[in-house]
Amino acid sequence: MGKGRIEAFSDGVIAIIITIMVLELKVPEGFDLEALRPMAPIFSAYVLSFVYVGIYWNNHHHMFHTVQKVSGGTLWANLHLLFWLSLFPAVTHWLGESHLAAWPTAAYGIVLFMAGIAYFILAHVMIRQHGPDSTLARALGRDIKGKTSVVLYLVGAVCAFIAPWISAALYTFVAAMWLIPDRRIEHLIGE
Amino acid sequence: MGKGRIEAFSDGVIAIIITIMVLELKVPEGFDLEALRPMAPIFSAYVLSFVYVGIYWNNHHHMFHTVQKVSGGTLWANLHLLFWLSLFPAVTHWLGESHLAAWPTAAYGIVLFMAGIAYFILAHVMIRQHGPDSTLARALGRDIKGKTSVVLYLVGAVCAFIAPWISAALYTFVAAMWLIPDRRIEHLIGE
Amino acid sequence: MGKGRIEAFSDGVIAIIITIMVLELKVPEGFDLEALRPMAPIFSAYVLSFVYVGIYWNNHHHMFHTVQKVSGGTLWANLHLLFWLSLFPAVTHWLGESHLAAWPTAAYGIVLFMAGIAYFILAHVMIRQHGPDSTLARALGRDIKGKTSVVLYLVGAVCAFIAPWISAALYTFVAAMWLIPDRRIEHLIGE
Amino acid sequence: MGKGRIEAFSDGVIAIIITIMVLELKVPEGFDLEALRPMAPIFSAYVLSFVYVGIYWNNHHHMFHTVQKVSGGTLWANLHLLFWLSLFPAVTHWLGESHLAAWPTAAYGIVLFMAGIAYFILAHVMIRQHGPDSTLARALGRDIKGKTSVVLYLVGAVCAFIAPWISAALYTFVAAMWLIPDRRIEHLIGE
Repeated sequence: MGKGRIEAFSDGVIAIIITIMVLELKVPEGFDLEALRPMAPIFSAYVLSFVYVGIYWNNHHHMFHTVQKVSGGTLWANLHLLFWLSLFPAVTHWLGESHLAAWPTAAYGIVLFMAGIAYFILAHVMIRQHGPDSTLARALGRDIKGKTSVVLYLVGAVCAFIAPWISAALYTFVAAMWLIPDRRIEHLIGE
Repeated sequence: MGKGRIEAFSDGVIAIIITIMVLELKVPEGFDLEALRPMAPIFSAYVLSFVYVGIYWNNHHHMFHTVQKVSGGTLWANLHLLFWLSLFPAVTHWLGESHLAAWPTAAYGIVLFMAGIAYFILAHVMIRQHGPDSTLARALGRDIKGKTSVVLYLVGAVCAFIAPWISAALYTFVAAMWLIPDRRIEHLIGE
Repeated sequence: MGKGRIEAFSDGVIAIIITIMVLELKVPEGFDLEALRPMAPIFSAYVLSFVYVGIYWNNHHHMFHTVQKVSGGTLWANLHLLFWLSLFPAVTHWLGESHLAAWPTAAYGIVLFMAGIAYFILAHVMIRQHGPDSTLARALGRDIKGKTSVVLYLVGAVCAFIAPWISAALYTFVAAMWLIPDRRIEHLIGE
Repeated sequence: MGKGRIEAFSDGVIAIIITIMVLELKVPEGFDLEALRPMAPIFSAYVLSFVYVGIYWNNHHHMFHTVQKVSGGTLWANLHLLFWLSLFPAVTHWLGESHLAAWPTAAYGIVLFMAGIAYFILAHVMIRQHGPDSTLARALGRDIKGKTSVVLYLVGAVCAFIAPWISAALYTFVAAMWLIPDRRIEHLIGE
């Protein structure tokens, strides 16, 4: 099967997820600067999630760029990833509204964790199809960055019950790790 | 007429339907675990509908994969299918909120039934165009799985007035039947 | 300029318009058959608008099928058409909620009228580019069906203040005229 | 990397932004002409934003038309532009509801300004990749129109605290400057 439609469908779903989060940015209930203040945490959560969804689209783009054919299993592994990404708007808003309360902060980390796992599964379904010598397998390598991220999401989710600010810092750090191709960070995690 | 735009438009509509259902996942009204409890049935209904829309996209993808040209009748048969799929978010939320009340459970089954019929019509409009020896006609075969599903949706809709849990079980069973390519299930229904 | 992106963008916008109308289908406030009753007029308006947006997508598809290149003017004429189509969800819901009150019924007709005019402008911008002997110009012909529709929309908008049921009948008749390729109707309007 | 998916994703996001603004057009709370009156400023803000998003899509279309390959930096510069465009629905509605209050008017100008800067960054990331002799670099030229716009947005944002009607006039003037290829305006700004 060609990869055209799975790319187009994923682009559609990710484009909707990234813009649907805007709908949660309710119009402030007043017309002065004070009205904007309660929006600061919601806006911060929105920016973080925008970056995360952007990272997933970017990685998804690169991953499918290396292959030409997709199997039936890839379709479902891809839908599984899209399912977890589709929960981003809901957990983003819950996090933003709660001012880093324990459960919303943990829920955000769990959705990040599950999306990371789903991406891992998708990558391995595609590698199984294309073989360990495929461009994809070599591009992914030992995927230490991916595995580190998934562990940090889980640590973040647990920290939510002790010190949610550590969770927020961890989520932001992982996003920055993917966004900024900093050699020191890459060295630090062993790539 | 080429099939490019009908695929792109269907991908767009299905991508929006599958993500719009997320909007129904309202942010819980509290920040503890208790706040998540009333969301369990809504979340379950969302997962079931996500799987169903995923199955439809998957089958739609495979069906159009076998053809190169589409007729004017196919455009309308396809829009008819998209119409019934577009009712999924509304009935999903009604079902999820109602804790399996009779009418919402029946309504869900009726929309599943109508979408199944619409898919059947679309398949036959396309087979009429491409002939009984086309790849599509041979791939569909006697379509016992499709016909069984449509009957089970109807049985589920009727059961909603007697024992809605049977309806929920039937809807879940049909989804699993399409999702899991289990040989025993396929044997059971005679394929 | 190639036509690929203008088609993809239009498909995206039209796909969103046709599915966004579903969001207006609010979940009934109860779980019995009574709860569905007040939804009947809203549902009818939704079906009518779904058919209209489907017709526009269909015609848009056919029109761009005949050309290979688009001019800068076509981009704006196309955006102008999409603007009026984007008002469909709002007027559809206003009409559905109002039980055919005068102003909502007139507003629906005015949006239909403006979309019809916008389609006419788009067609003529494209014909000016491709010449009177182009496939597009010959396919459109004297466009009696299009001109009749636009007049009937206007008559419907005026009738809304006298007898809104006539307006509803006119809007439905025009939709049916495009949907059903009935030879007698086509004869009646002189094609 | 090919440009196909970045175009498709951007088309998707811009299509959703331009149509999501419609959701803000709440159904009037009555069925007579009076009910429409409070919608006039909201509708005006919607039309202005529709034109702006249309202009961005148009320019985006032309810019990517001149190139064949995109770099990793372009993906992120493009996402940065989409981020600011995604704030249009929220600021549009805030502006429309506020009847040109100071902060909403300023916020609208700031989002216009940031989107202008993001477009400028995107253009220069792409020019750096393709060289100063590329079609893109020559098409953009000294980009006096773009630079003038960005300055006028900033002036508009500042004016919001003195005379918001001047801001509204400035925002409308810049939109008209891009929409209408008027030779006198182009002469006035030195192109």
